Order: sequence, then structure tokens, then C-alpha cells
Amino acid sequence: MDPLHDRGSRGFASDNYAGTHPEVIDAIASANGGHVSSYGEDPWTARLQQLFAGLLGDGVAVFPVFNGTGANVVGLQSMLTRWGAVIAPSLAHINTDEGGAPEKVGGMKIVPVPTPDAKLTPDLVSAVSGSRGVHQAVPQVVSITQSTELGTLYSVDEIAALADRARSLGLAVHMDGARIANAAAALGVPLRAFTRDVGVDVLSFGGTKNGAIGAEAVVVLNPDAVHGVDYLRKTAMQLASKMRFVSAQLVALLTDDLWLRSGARANAMAARLRAGVEAGLADGTIRGVAFTQPTQTNGVFATLSAGVADRLRERFRFYDWNEATGEVRWLTSFDTAEDDVDAFVAAIAAETGA
Amino acid sequence: MDPLHDRGSRGFASDNYAGTHPEVIDAIASANGGHVSSYGEDPWTARLQQLFAGLLGDGVAVFPVFNGTGANVVGLQSMLTRWGAVIAPSLAHINTDEGGAPEKVGGMKIVPVPTPDAKLTPDLVSAVSGSRGVHQAVPQVVSITQSTELGTLYSVDEIAALADRARSLGLAVHMDGARIANAAAALGVPLRAFTRDVGVDVLSFGGTKNGAIGAEAVVVLNPDAVHGVDYLRKTAMQLASKMRFVSAQLVALLTDDLWLRSGARANAMAARLRAGVEAGLADGTIRGVAFTQPTQTNGVFATLSAGVADRLRERFRFYDWNEATGEVRWLTSFDTAEDDVDAFVAAIAAETGA
Amino acid sequence: MDPLHDRGSRGFASDNYAGTHPEVIDAIASANGGHVSSYGEDPWTARLQQLFAGLLGDGVAVFPVFNGTGANVVGLQSMLTRWGAVIAPSLAHINTDEGGAPEKVGGMKIVPVPTPDAKLTPDLVSAVSGSRGVHQAVPQVVSITQSTELGTLYSVDEIAALADRARSLGLAVHMDGARIANAAAALGVPLRAFTRDVGVDVLSFGGTKNGAIGAEAVVVLNPDAVHGVDYLRKTAMQLASKMRFVSAQLVALLTDDLWLRSGARANAMAARLRAGVEAGLADGTIRGVAFTQPTQTNGVFATLSAGVADRLRERFRFYDWNEATGEVRWLTSFDTAEDDVDAFVAAIAAETGA
Amino acid sequence: MDPLHDRGSRGFASDNYAGTHPEVIDAIASANGGHVSSYGEDPWTARLQQLFAGLLGDGVAVFPVFNGTGANVVGLQSMLTRWGAVIAPSLAHINTDEGGAPEKVGGMKIVPVPTPDAKLTPDLVSAVSGSRGVHQAVPQVVSITQSTELGTLYSVDEIAALADRARSLGLAVHMDGARIANAAAALGVPLRAFTRDVGVDVLSFGGTKNGAIGAEAVVVLNPDAVHGVDYLRKTAMQLASKMRFVSAQLVALLTDDLWLRSGARANAMAARLRAGVEAGLADGTIRGVAFTQPTQTNGVFATLSAGVADRLRERFRFYDWNEATGEVRWLTSFDTAEDDVDAFVAAIAAETGA
Repeated sequence: MDPLHDRGSRGFASDNYAGTHPEVIDAIASANGGHVSSYGEDPWTARLQQLFAGLLGDGVAVFPVFNGTGANVVGLQSMLTRWGAVIAPSLAHINTDEGGAPEKVGGMKIVPVPTPDAKLTPDLVSAVSGSRGVHQAVPQVVSITQSTELGTLYSVDEIAALADRARSLGLAVHMDGARIANAAAALGVPLRAFTRDVGVDVLSFGGTKNGAIGAEAVVVLNPDAVHGVDYLRKTAMQLASKMRFVSAQLVALLTDDLWLRSGARANAMAARLRAGVEAGLADGTIRGVAFTQPTQTNGVFATLSAGVADRLRERFRFYDWNEATGEVRWLTSFDTAEDDVDAFVAAIAAETGA
Repeated sequence: MDPLHDRGSRGFASDNYAGTHPEVIDAIASANGGHVSSYGEDPWTARLQQLFAGLLGDGVAVFPVFNGTGANVVGLQSMLTRWGAVIAPSLAHINTDEGGAPEKVGGMKIVPVPTPDAKLTPDLVSAVSGSRGVHQAVPQVVSITQSTELGTLYSVDEIAALADRARSLGLAVHMDGARIANAAAALGVPLRAFTRDVGVDVLSFGGTKNGAIGAEAVVVLNPDAVHGVDYLRKTAMQLASKMRFVSAQLVALLTDDLWLRSGARANAMAARLRAGVEAGLADGTIRGVAFTQPTQTNGVFATLSAGVADRLRERFRFYDWNEATGEVRWLTSFDTAEDDVDAFVAAIAAETGA
Repeated sequence: MDPLHDRGSRGFASDNYAGTHPEVIDAIASANGGHVSSYGEDPWTARLQQLFAGLLGDGVAVFPVFNGTGANVVGLQSMLTRWGAVIAPSLAHINTDEGGAPEKVGGMKIVPVPTPDAKLTPDLVSAVSGSRGVHQAVPQVVSITQSTELGTLYSVDEIAALADRARSLGLAVHMDGARIANAAAALGVPLRAFTRDVGVDVLSFGGTKNGAIGAEAVVVLNPDAVHGVDYLRKTAMQLASKMRFVSAQLVALLTDDLWLRSGARANAMAARLRAGVEAGLADGTIRGVAFTQPTQTNGVFATLSAGVADRLRERFRFYDWNEATGEVRWLTSFDTAEDDVDAFVAAIAAETGA
Repeated sequence: MDPLHDRGSRGFASDNYAGTHPEVIDAIASANGGHVSSYGEDPWTARLQQLFAGLLGDGVAVFPVFNGTGANVVGLQSMLTRWGAVIAPSLAHINTDEGGAPEKVGGMKIVPVPTPDAKLTPDLVSAVSGSRGVHQAVPQVVSITQSTELGTLYSVDEIAALADRARSLGLAVHMDGARIANAAAALGVPLRAFTRDVGVDVLSFGGTKNGAIGAEAVVVLNPDAVHGVDYLRKTAMQLASKMRFVSAQLVALLTDDLWLRSGARANAMAARLRAGVEAGLADGTIRGVAFTQPTQTNGVFATLSAGVADRLRERFRFYDWNEATGEVRWLTSFDTAEDDVDAFVAAIAAETGA
């Protein structure tokens, strides 16, 4: 079939704009042929379970799902009673980008906590964790995003401190890992070291932004923290009939550290972009760009002078983050090339420089 | 990547046990590379919309989703108020196989109607369509499955009569088309002839059982019958970020009539299976098999003598349908081969014949 | 304040058409004055708890609510996981008269079982109790109505047999007791004998139809069968702020057996109505009336010749039950007088007799 | 029946601790006797409709419900699509005190806006009113509380400005009037002048805190802003079967301005309390009390020195508002007596003065 689009065009709009890593498609093809049991009773899902046990230790349980909202809602539901609430940063994807699915489908209340870098702290959690009996939805879970919607990163110690505080408050800990690969690559420690070992109970493991065509997983790190994940996945309409093909995508990512290599590549390209712009600012070839967040993973957030963003977008796609302040978001992905970055930096220079 | 399973093994358990048509994987590969907009603003989704308009006429709107439950729930929600109910056969997938998602996530009530062949009739609908004001969830939609969970088929006239009755009762019409390709192939008329032209308002178009890895679509045939499909799809967690890959699967199915060819193939294999068993019954090489439903599409339902099913299952997978009566279900799929059928018939003969 | 209605008019339409027993209003007045804690931390609710413990034994817990739908939904939610289903007769109030609240608000699926007398049997329960894993909402509770929507009554043994079967199938037992007083009066045994002692886990204790202005209670008979009733009551919007006034109504009913006396009175009036009509049929003064259900509590169900119902309704209000068959429902209530019944029987004779 | 509590004890904990105005019980008694139609087809509900039309003009529609959470959820649901969100102050009752019912039962998302006085402003609304298509629950309603949870009051002009801004942003306006009588009394203008005439679409009219035993109403001021209120009330389990008794309570409040007189009385007692403490602070008989909000209705918010609150509570009940800061809440109600206030002021003086 002929392509319908320009297969050489890449921008900085979203890691969801990127396609699929070829090894993922290879895995889908390998998983094809013959008949296997549906709904997860297949060898590819079994292999996936083994791979996660290798990464995270015995006793973890993996539930592949279709998308990140599905992973978050199913995971959180499994941690909550019907009267529970989730403490999350105001900027959390579950609060701002999931169409209200956590409330409307998941039946949970989110207690949003304003925070400038999209990261919670133990004291922020404590401040909203009090229960008033039956009158208020009861905080039962803290949800953090790693890496965050602003490209920032929790350190291992920060997660440990948060989880300790959560535990002391009777709260479980959920991690939205839509960009977990970027986080793992940036931290340079094993996945287990910043999740299970420091008290995270349930992880939404993201594959789609990392190069899958559509594959995420609810990974239960602490079986005591959940109930009915398999039932909730079905009820949430996230149970794939031909699950072998969802699992095979994640198997591909976890084979030979493809997920980490892809995460590292995206991070490196963001760093290159930031460095290029900083160099331009230093030597005057770029003007009027101010960074608004540290670049710790694959996102670069900056403010531009009026009009610059729109002119740049004639060649490179990216989104405004805050129209009022002129802030923009530049995201890199597993397929971003050095040439893409260099061309973009050059374009910024052309639009802003002397 | 090495396969983890026997790629030559095929049974009669489920069309969800089958894999993917190679043309579907080719389409995924073609859709890969470069960046395109996410969430449906991509050329593959646009092409899919064109293909459906070609099949069904101008004004239809297509919303790709992940799975059949998703298609049904999103489609039905878009047709219902918060106080609405859906009339459906007791055996409907939405009533028996979707984990309660229509009620628990969709917020609808299902009014199940007992019917021996899984088909509704106008009079069955009339009998339960009355409204008692606010006291009872108000019937607003009739949902039929084409082809049904028992492999039976509505004729064009039957659908027209149902839709006419529904309209006269103020009800809209939903069609669960998880096996729409089998139905279309069996009826031998254009898709439009037994859907839009006879009064179906919303169609769940099934791709997965037909050879996709996981792709279905809510197809709105009557825009006046729905509201907010795009919002409801998001809230129901059925909005794919990299939608190009979902759409490309459906594009592959709709290209060169792959969907119809695959549906016809499965139907032919079911017919071959039935004919083979009937021949065996006629000549005495097979005994003790009685068919419980007509074989109109890709399902064969029959009762077996005690013990036969379990012995057959040592070589061929299939499900009991009703353990109490010894009824079994044999499903064929797009990849069922003549040799598979012939070997199965021979095995039945070996287990039951003189 | 002047009355707005005819305080002497009484019919046979519904026990919800009746007003309030004067002792209930007296109790409300007694509960008035001064300040007490809200939301159930008051002496009237404490007294109610004591009264129920006296009736049902130590360890029961009482949660007053506003109405019967509230009692049923809160009680059932407390017995179910998010993926659970309730087995109930098709004619159950929860299935036909609660506006879909059990599904839409309670998030449960109801599995309706057709049954001619609105009563379940152990075998009817067994037939639908099977679980198919995650694919179907999992039956977890059997709900029966005592006395039923058709005025029929479960015997103590019938309830015991149902509860035994339920227990053996892993199901809990819920009793919708909107007319529990009529049932208790008819059975002539202590409340405990046909509820807690025979395996009922949760009871919706009805006060409104029995003479309250609006008061019901979720009565937990088996604490192991429920979770979070107090939270669920709040979330279901059934937590009264000035709860003393809800509790006082129920205290009035439980004081000096007012509930039982009122139930017995209503039952006696229904028996008188049936006897009167039967006498008329025997002596020919009444013709064309056929009873469709036994009259075991406060409901009389019968078919009338065409036109009779409408003519009778010019003087006495009552509802059609099945317009197709000419079946009508006559309900008596705590305030029905012998003269009311006799006048009604005379009117039936006048409309139908020779 | 003998009282179970001290009918002379009154504190400052909550207007929900107060009992019922005797005229309300008289109205219940007047509504008693005889049979009337259930579920709202009765003369008392018709009278209530007339009374509200008199207050608010033709075309308003009144739907009595059981409690304030019920009124808010039903009203808001009727204004929202399934994908909608409500903008409200963080301190709004719907956000903090309704057990998550708006999300869990109502299926809505609340967008909480931090604000020091519990009041929204047009600019606060604008800042969060933007829609991002399907990705975020779509703001469709602004909900304000009049008078607020902090005892503060919107002026007529403030409401008009908010409603104008809302309208320009495509948002409807909901008013939580759990203490609408206190607001109306404080503003000194007709109810209509600060609701319907300035653009409020739906009002939760509160009766319970104003002296009912349990009666509120959804009052639709703009029929174009809602859909299906009657169905939603039923589904939300807020439809009273013997509705005459709910309506009669509200009829009593609206007769001879009882609601306004009671609201004014409570306000006057709060003013007296504040004035008494201020006088004590001025003359040194009271020390260490600082007011944290203006006293515009029936609430007085103040900080006390450590230990004072607990000592005062040995005689007078009231709640901490913010334990961290020592802030307390003193509420007056329709039955607060001048002697109650004077004794409380004296006690404050005794605990804090020289």
C-alpha cells in the first residue's frame, strides 16, 4: 500500500506524532500466524510477564492495555474504593488531558495540587491528605508522573520521600509512566530502583510514546495495593481480544533495551536542542528565547517573542503551551534525528537572530 | 524476533484466536515513518473516512476505536440520554460479554429480550418498548447484532422491518457489526443496503475478528441520531493517540474488498464444515451430531454425545456453548484452510462413527 | 395552614398515595427543638439502632436513608465490587421502577430472571449464577422482594432455601423490604426469623409505604457481607443532614409495633376486598372478575372485563397493571377503612353484576 | 413520644444542628390525611410551583428533592453533557463536602478555583474556561454558592457580572442556595433580583438549613439551560414518593415569608455575636480573637488563641475550620436566641479576657 503521508517529515509537536519503531512492527509480524488464545492467554503475553518480572522482580503482574488513559484509569480504580480520591498535580495528565475519564468512567475524584514544575512534594501531599469522614471523597492514592508533563524528572530520592510520606498518611502511590523510558534513561538507574524499590505500588508503563503503535501496561508492583485489575480492565474496555499483538509490541520494546535506547535518543535530542539554542543565545545568533523548565528528559519549554512561534511553525510543527505568556513546548521522540534538531536550531536563529 | 507459538496451528475456538491478515501488517508498515498529527488528524484516518463514504454514502462519519466493546459503548452512549435504555437480545454481546461495561461505564440500562436465535423481531421490540415516564429507564435504542452471536443472520427485509417498527416507536437503531464482514458476504448485497438504506442509525464496524490486530469503528449513518461521539470516544478511553495505525488497519480491510473476501472465506469454511458433517451423518461415518442453529455465516452450533467434545479438543480447540445440553460452538475465520476443516470432519468421524 | 386536598378521599392506587400515621408526625414533633448533631450522630438515630438490635439481634447496623431506591442502591453497592451483578426477578422494583438508578448511579448490572409470581427459586438462581470470568459482570448478590411487587410472599422456608443456595454459589442475599411490614404481618413470625436467621445479609427496611413521610433504612444483618455503607450512603446522596427527623419516623414505626399493626391492617383490608369480590362472584352480584395472583399481603391483582376499570376509576383510583390483558392492581394501605373496601366492592358489583 | 434530647440546648456548630420551625411541622400535618397522587402529582407540589412562580416569574419550574447534594447534582447534571465540567470555587460545597457525589454519581468533573473568600470573579472564571477540544472535560457551567461556605455574600452586581462573563464564554450559571434565605435577607432585594434577573439559570433552593426537616428544590430559572430534570431527579434517587410532605415543608417556608424571616433572624444573631465580640475586644473584656471573614450572613469566622476553642466547647458546640491556624466557625440558625449569643459572648470573655 502506498504511503499517504511524507515519511521523512518530523517535527517537535509530540511524541505521539512519531510513528513506530521498525522492531515493533517486526514483533507484530512474528506474533502473527496460527491461532492462539485470546484475551491474554497467549505466549506473547506470558513472555511479557517474564520480561517485567526480570526488570522488576518476582510478584509483579502485568496487564497490557490500549492507551495511557486506560492504563491510568484501570490502575487507579484498582487502588481505590468507590469513595476514594486521588491526589495529583494540577498539571497531571489525568487531571487535564484525559477528557474527564478518571471521574466519568473511573468514578474517582481528583484532588489537584497546584505546583510550578508539575511535581508533588511530601508537604504538598500532606496538606491535602486529610480526610473528613464521609463528607469528602477520601484521599487514598497519590499519583505522580515520571517524567512529568513539563519534562521534569523526580529523582530517586524524591520518589522515595514522597512514597514514605504517602505510606505514613495511609496513601498508596501510583506512577503515570507514559514517558517512563525517558525517565529511566535520564536517571540512569534500573526501572526497579525508582519504582518498586522506593514504594511505588502501581505503574502505568508507557509504550506508545516510546515507539509502539499503541501499547501500555498496568504493572502492579505491590499486589496488596490493588484489587480486581483483570475485571476492571475488562469493564474499562481495555481488554484486547487479540492481545498477543499488544503484548508483542511491549515485548519488542523490552527486548535488547529498545525502550531505553529509544528514551535515551529522545532525551539526547532534547539536550542537543537546548544546547544549540543556548549556544545561539550566548553568541547572539539567537535572541528572545527563555527557558521555563529544566530540560531533564525529552521536552524543552521556552518562551518566544511575539510572532516567532507562528513563523517557525511554517516549517516545524510544535504546540503553544501557554498562549498568554508565549510559552511553547518542543518535544523530541525516538526517531528525532540530529539533522532535525540542527535544522530547527538554525531556523530559530534565522527567525530571531541579528 | 523468533515466534513464541506454533504458527501453523489453527482451530475452531474463536475468530479472535486467529491472527492478522498480512495486508493489515503491510498497511501498518506503510503508515509508519515520519510525523503526522495524532488523535485522528492524519491522512490515514482521512482516507478511512473517504472509504466509508464510498461504501455508505456522503454524510457518514467514522470514529476508529480499539475494540468492539468500545465501539458499542461509544456508539450507544452517543444515541442515549443519561436516562435511556437499550433493547437487545438476551444473547447480545453487549448483554453477556462486555463485563457490564455498557452499564458500568456507559451508564445505560439494557433491556434483554429472550429469543432463541439471538434475533429480535418487531413484535419483540414492541413488547418492551413502552415507557413509564421517569420510573423506568426509557427505551431509546434497539441494538441488533449482524451476524449474531449464534451465527444467524438478519435478512435485509428483517432489518428494514425492525427499523421501521423502531422508528414508529421513537427508537433509534444500532447494529453491532463485530462480524459485519461475515454478514455482508453472506447477504451478498452492499453494506449500505442492509444498514443505512434500511434505517440503521449507528454501526459498530468490526475489523478485529476480520483480520485486524485491533481496530473497530463507530460509523454514524444518521448524524441526527447521535451527539458528541468524539467527546464520548475520548471519555470512554477509546481515542488512539497514534490513530494512523488503527485507521491503516481498517483502510487495509476496505481496500480491494479484503474485508469481504475474508468474510466470505470464513463463511465458506463454516459451510464446508457443516456439509462435511452432514455428509458423514448421511453415510453413517458420523453419528450423534445435531445442529442447533442454521449455519448462515461463520459459526456452526451443534450438540455432541457425551465425551466427544473433550476427545476432539485434544487436537482441535473449540468452546462449549451450553454444557448442560452438550452444545458446542465451532467458529471459522479468515485464515481457516480447507485442510483444517477436512481434518476436523475426519476427526469427528473418527470419534463418533461406526 | 389549610389543607389543599380532600383529607377523606382514599383509593386503591398505591400505598404511596396514603399519608402518614399521626404517631409518625408526633415523633417528628418530639424530635424537634434544641440542637443535636447532624448526619446521624443524634439520640434518635441511636435509639433507632437500639430498636433494630432488639428486633434483629446484636451486630446489626442501621443506616437511615430517604427512599426505597436509595436503600436498595446503597445496600447493593455495599455488597458488590465494581464488576459485580445482581440476580433479581424481572419484575423487581430495582429492575423496573427505579429509573435505572442501580445501573446508572450504582454501577451494577442486574440479571433479570423471568418468573410469573415475582419470586425467585433456588433453581432459577442457579441457572444464571455462573461466572464467565472477566467477560460478564460477575453475579455476586441475589435480591428478592418481600413482599413482592405482585403482593406475593416468600415463606420462611423459601427464603432459607434461597439463601442456602445462594451461599453455596458464593452469592450474598439482599432483601428489598419496601413492604416488609406487610410481609411480617402476613408471616406472623418475628422479623428476624425470615431475614437474619435464614441467611439474608442486607435488608432494605421500608417505612414510607408503611406510614412514614419518607424514611427507609439499609439494615446490615451480616457485617461481613458489606463494605463502606456509610461512605456509599453519602456518595449516593442519601445522607440526611437533619437525620434525627428521618430516624424519628422509623422509631415511631418500631414503637409499640406500629409498623406491624399498620401492615396487618393493610393486609386485612386486601383480604376483605378479595373476600368481598369472591362472595359477589359466588352469588352472582359480581361478574367477570378473575384473580391473577394469590392475595397474601396488601395487593389484589385481577382482570376485569373491558371498560369496567375505567368506569370504576371515576370514583376509586387504581392502576392498570397490564393493559393488554385487562389486569389491574388494587393496593390497600395502613389507612384503608372497612367502609372504603365495602364501598369499592359495592361499586364493582354495580358495574359488573346482573 | 418522649424526647430523647435536651430541647433547650443550642450551639453554634451548624444550621444543620437546629431543628425544624413549628410551622413546617404544621404544614406536614396539614398535608396529611386522605390519598393524593404520589411522585409530585399532588396539590402541595402544585402550590409550591405557584409560590415559586410568584417569587421568580412565569416559566420557572420547581423540582423538590431531599437534600442539598441532591439538588446540586440533579441541577448540574441537567445543565451538562456527559463530557462537561463545572467551574467552582475550591471551597464550594460540591467540591469539598458532597463525598464526591458530583463526580461519582453525577459524572461531572469539577474544576476547582482557589479563592480566599469562596467567591468567584469574572476573571477567575475566564482563566479556567478554555476548552481544549476532546482532551479535557469541557467547562459548561459556573457554580457559585450564595451565601458562601465562608458566610460571604455576592452582591447583585457581582452576580450579574459573573453571569455576563459566563454567558460570553458559553457557560451557564448555577447557584447553590443551601443558604439562599440568609443571602436574600442580607441583600434585602427580591429573590428574583439576584437570581433570574441577573442571569442565573438554575438555583438549588435550600430549605433544610432554613428550618425544614429535609427539603430542597431544583429551581429552573431558564428552561433553555436544562434537559431532563425530572428524569435525572429519579435516576439520582431524589424523587420522593410521598412528595406532598416534601413540598409542604417548602410551602410553609414560602408562606408569609417564613424563609426570609428565619434567614434574617439567623443573620441578626451572627451580627449580634460579632458585635458582642468586637465590643469585648474594644473594651478589653475579650482578647485574642481575630475575624477572618466579613460577617455578611449567618457565619462568623475567627481565630482564637490556643486552647480557647476547646474550653469554650465544653459548653457551646462549634467546629474548627482550620486547625492549623486556630480558625473556628460559628454558625447561627433560625432558632438562635439573643440569650444564646449573649451567653456565648460572655463565655468568650470569660475564657479570654483579663
